Amino acid sequence: MRLSQFHLHTVKETPAEAEVVSHKLMLKAGMIRKLAAGLYTWSPLGLRVLRKVETAVREEMNAAGAMELLMPTVQPKELWEETGRWQKFGGQLLKIKDRKEAEYCYGPTAEEVITDYARNELSSYKQLPVNFYNVQWKFRDEIRPRFGVMRAREFLMKDAYSFHVDDESLAAEYRNMYDTYGRIFTRLGLKFRAVFADTGAIGGTASHEFHVLADSGEDALAFSSESDYAANVELAEALPPGPRPAAAEAMRRIDTPTQKTCEDVAALMGIPLQRTVKSVALMGVDAEGQPQFVLALVRGDHVVNEIKLAKLAGLGEYRLATEGEIDTHLGSEPGFLGPVNPKQKLRIVADRSVAAMADFVVGANEKGVHLAGVNWGRDLPEPDDVADIRNVVEGDPSPDGKGTLGFARGIEVGHVFALGRRYSEAMQCTVLDSSGKPVMPAMGCYGIGVSRIVAAAIEQNHDANGIIWPEAMAPWRVAVCVINPKNDTNVATAAEALYRELNAAGIDTVLDDRGLRPGAMFADIELIGIPHRVVVSERGLAAGSFEYRHRRASEAESLDRAALLARLGAA
Amino acid sequence: MRLSQFHLHTVKETPAEAEVVSHKLMLKAGMIRKLAAGLYTWSPLGLRVLRKVETAVREEMNAAGAMELLMPTVQPKELWEETGRWQKFGGQLLKIKDRKEAEYCYGPTAEEVITDYARNELSSYKQLPVNFYNVQWKFRDEIRPRFGVMRAREFLMKDAYSFHVDDESLAAEYRNMYDTYGRIFTRLGLKFRAVFADTGAIGGTASHEFHVLADSGEDALAFSSESDYAANVELAEALPPGPRPAAAEAMRRIDTPTQKTCEDVAALMGIPLQRTVKSVALMGVDAEGQPQFVLALVRGDHVVNEIKLAKLAGLGEYRLATEGEIDTHLGSEPGFLGPVNPKQKLRIVADRSVAAMADFVVGANEKGVHLAGVNWGRDLPEPDDVADIRNVVEGDPSPDGKGTLGFARGIEVGHVFALGRRYSEAMQCTVLDSSGKPVMPAMGCYGIGVSRIVAAAIEQNHDANGIIWPEAMAPWRVAVCVINPKNDTNVATAAEALYRELNAAGIDTVLDDRGLRPGAMFADIELIGIPHRVVVSERGLAAGSFEYRHRRASEAESLDRAALLARLGAA
Repeated sequence: MRLSQFHLHTVKETPAEAEVVSHKLMLKAGMIRKLAAGLYTWSPLGLRVLRKVETAVREEMNAAGAMELLMPTVQPKELWEETGRWQKFGGQLLKIKDRKEAEYCYGPTAEEVITDYARNELSSYKQLPVNFYNVQWKFRDEIRPRFGVMRAREFLMKDAYSFHVDDESLAAEYRNMYDTYGRIFTRLGLKFRAVFADTGAIGGTASHEFHVLADSGEDALAFSSESDYAANVELAEALPPGPRPAAAEAMRRIDTPTQKTCEDVAALMGIPLQRTVKSVALMGVDAEGQPQFVLALVRGDHVVNEIKLAKLAGLGEYRLATEGEIDTHLGSEPGFLGPVNPKQKLRIVADRSVAAMADFVVGANEKGVHLAGVNWGRDLPEPDDVADIRNVVEGDPSPDGKGTLGFARGIEVGHVFALGRRYSEAMQCTVLDSSGKPVMPAMGCYGIGVSRIVAAAIEQNHDANGIIWPEAMAPWRVAVCVINPKNDTNVATAAEALYRELNAAGIDTVLDDRGLRPGAMFADIELIGIPHRVVVSERGLAAGSFEYRHRRASEAESLDRAALLARLGAA
Repeated sequence: MRLSQFHLHTVKETPAEAEVVSHKLMLKAGMIRKLAAGLYTWSPLGLRVLRKVETAVREEMNAAGAMELLMPTVQPKELWEETGRWQKFGGQLLKIKDRKEAEYCYGPTAEEVITDYARNELSSYKQLPVNFYNVQWKFRDEIRPRFGVMRAREFLMKDAYSFHVDDESLAAEYRNMYDTYGRIFTRLGLKFRAVFADTGAIGGTASHEFHVLADSGEDALAFSSESDYAANVELAEALPPGPRPAAAEAMRRIDTPTQKTCEDVAALMGIPLQRTVKSVALMGVDAEGQPQFVLALVRGDHVVNEIKLAKLAGLGEYRLATEGEIDTHLGSEPGFLGPVNPKQKLRIVADRSVAAMADFVVGANEKGVHLAGVNWGRDLPEPDDVADIRNVVEGDPSPDGKGTLGFARGIEVGHVFALGRRYSEAMQCTVLDSSGKPVMPAMGCYGIGVSRIVAAAIEQNHDANGIIWPEAMAPWRVAVCVINPKNDTNVATAAEALYRELNAAGIDTVLDDRGLRPGAMFADIELIGIPHRVVVSERGLAAGSFEYRHRRASEAESLDRAALLARLGAA
């Protein structure tokens, strides 16, 4: 492609509407243009990148034995009523009435449609296992669409659905897809992690999310320094610490007139934050269903994990206690509360780290006072519950026993689910097994946000000058830039020859023959993220060399023709 | 691809829901499955064909210099209000409200979106001409969706839109697209015609439709035997005949007691139908806007063309005259009316063929009587209007003066329009011309029904056994069929080797290793329309030969390996 014949439309100003860097850079590079809230037109430049992602996904899915088909974007209400999701899916489901008042939705996912397809197409175990996928536009009517194509309403998704006569077969395909996703993101040149996940609204029994790692990611991930363990921070288990040391101090009162937080108390006392204990007052229910006052205790440097807490008996729908309730049960005001000497019987839920502490510091249930040298069994009863109720922190041991946990932020771009039989049961999808008996197939589903990957890749790969595409996603791998193409036919001829030679060698190359000043031309080529830049100039030709620069390199280098071709992989 | 690992699902029964052969065969071959009215899932087999069409269209569009981008399927109401089409488009426009009650439609076409894109992206004549296209799903909410993907509601369309600083540039791109469409349909192996067309609802100044020729086509086409002239029958001009001969007969009364049609009268008299004249009584308006009784005359073997008639002064909104009006003006009842001796003054509009007749036969305005030997100027005044008001018939001279007209039926699969400035004016899209003055660009638009082509190709290419794909559209070009793959490892090995060799040579080949009986296997391969079939059997291998049959051949032939590879283009 010659840029003089291509619609490239970069923008100098940083668009005010964009909040995240990928959105800003996609607008500045002219990859997308907003049509309406959450709806984007992909320009010729943007589409080149989108198609490269789509192709990589398709080729790896095919190689993994999945079969591509294509489902309509518009789906009939009737199927969604069979699974109960017409109501349950919520406001993200874009509902449509046709001219005859028949109801449809713009598919946000396609479990219903594929299960309907399967119950008509599949009749025998001999047709299983099978994995159908499509790459199709989806719509989710986000309340607040934002971040460009990262959270657009209309987005391109690869969704795959597998059918199995038994759970073993599903487990094998789940592993196959897990491995395939790894190959896809590796091929795209992205740093990523597969993490354990909650199964959420789609339901099912096993699930992993695939995250592109980026500092700007919405999700906090914890991963092992020595294994491939990874999980959402909120779901990672904090392993139990070693045994509780013996008590060494006597309990004593500390005046803390204005110190209401563990940080302030530790600073005042000159002790590590790890010696303090934070008390969080909650209201749950007891075994009889009556309201129960609960004090949850975590170490001063830890954070209570609401998901873990809510898994404990009586705390499924807990809420924070009011000041009145705190006063009633503890005789304290917030900032000074603690588990020692409450006014009334209460339930104490201690994180495993807290249960293993000795000589710790807590609030005294008295304004302006804390207690130090507190010990379990001596100064207060042993806790009613000991459980993992905190978020993991960096440096915690990895739950799989290998290495310690590090943290990263991620952007979810893929998800694999072992669905089980939820959809086949709801929609009465059966096949005959080898003994002629009708059985409901187990299902898996496997999604990749194709258009979202484009934005995620930019979040991971950019600098102050613009995008830095991984090779496999770049609109072109190489840009051949011509200085003064019109003034010097030698330069134009040499550039044209190099451009043709590289493309003939299978290296996707663009010729920048627009005749811009070098500064403006280089700024564009950097902004749109071309990995390799070659400058053809009169001075270089005279010296028999080309100026080469990798997008991540700080300096250009002078290479002769052979060295250049070798560097670009064309020789 | 090995069929044992592919989801092929052919059906023996002819589906009752299908009215046309392409719909029947696509269902029987398992290419599509109905999801809801006018919504179809494309199976893995169907999608292979759809993608081949899409790829051919894309490659030819790129080669023609058009630039692919991608617009959302959902479009905001505001843009459609700028052009007035939110109201005018009618019931086919699928309107959508999102969760915030904002209004959208599922795009049935994209003039508004691309013009909005252009007014933001294009600012200078230097960026023109430019031709943007996309291949995207569209929706038209047909009252009666039918014929499968031929008239589905959700369908895949390639739509291109060009922008030009002047009309000459538009004319050049129009010609470029016209030629490109010819290359696309030729490459797809389809018999087609480009025909002059009315510009219809989209509006504009010049337009051609591209039709795939098929006996089952909805549109009747007239084309020249010697040139590339072609037009919808209704639009083709009937050229004026030679000069009127001199009168040779006296006018006389013929008793026609029960003969009310030209056919019956000609049969009674033993004369050619071409000697009779049909009189059609109409009500139009005169120059003062008053109701005017009009007698339109065409030759007995001709048919009145309503479109042509309505272009005459006073007949823009004509209607047929009532029996009362006929009696008032002619004193006749239907079946015997004619232009001679009316009761009142009337307007006579004669087709050019009729104006050139002598000694003709017409109704006598008297029950049971016709007049023969009638002549203009002698027995009745010369006609008030002489015009082309009839449909052309086969054998008429071609309007371009070259050869005679033949008829064919066609299925519209493409359309090119020179739109002019209708959309750029309505949406205030301007660019600066070379003198720095803002001008509204002239536009062209160019559509191809990608999914419809699949059905149209089948209408043109099928037999009693199923589909006969043109090479470029076939899901696979060659099927290698293995007899008893499990019983005989030599046969399986030889078939596998041939299958690999053909694919390695770039010939898209499928291996039928399902182990079906030969009859069932061959029936499937014929039904799904694979152009070349090769049978690998023990007996053939012993004789060093393969059984080869082209889908259109009546007999199989025995070919040795070299001859087979040569025949398939692999050697």
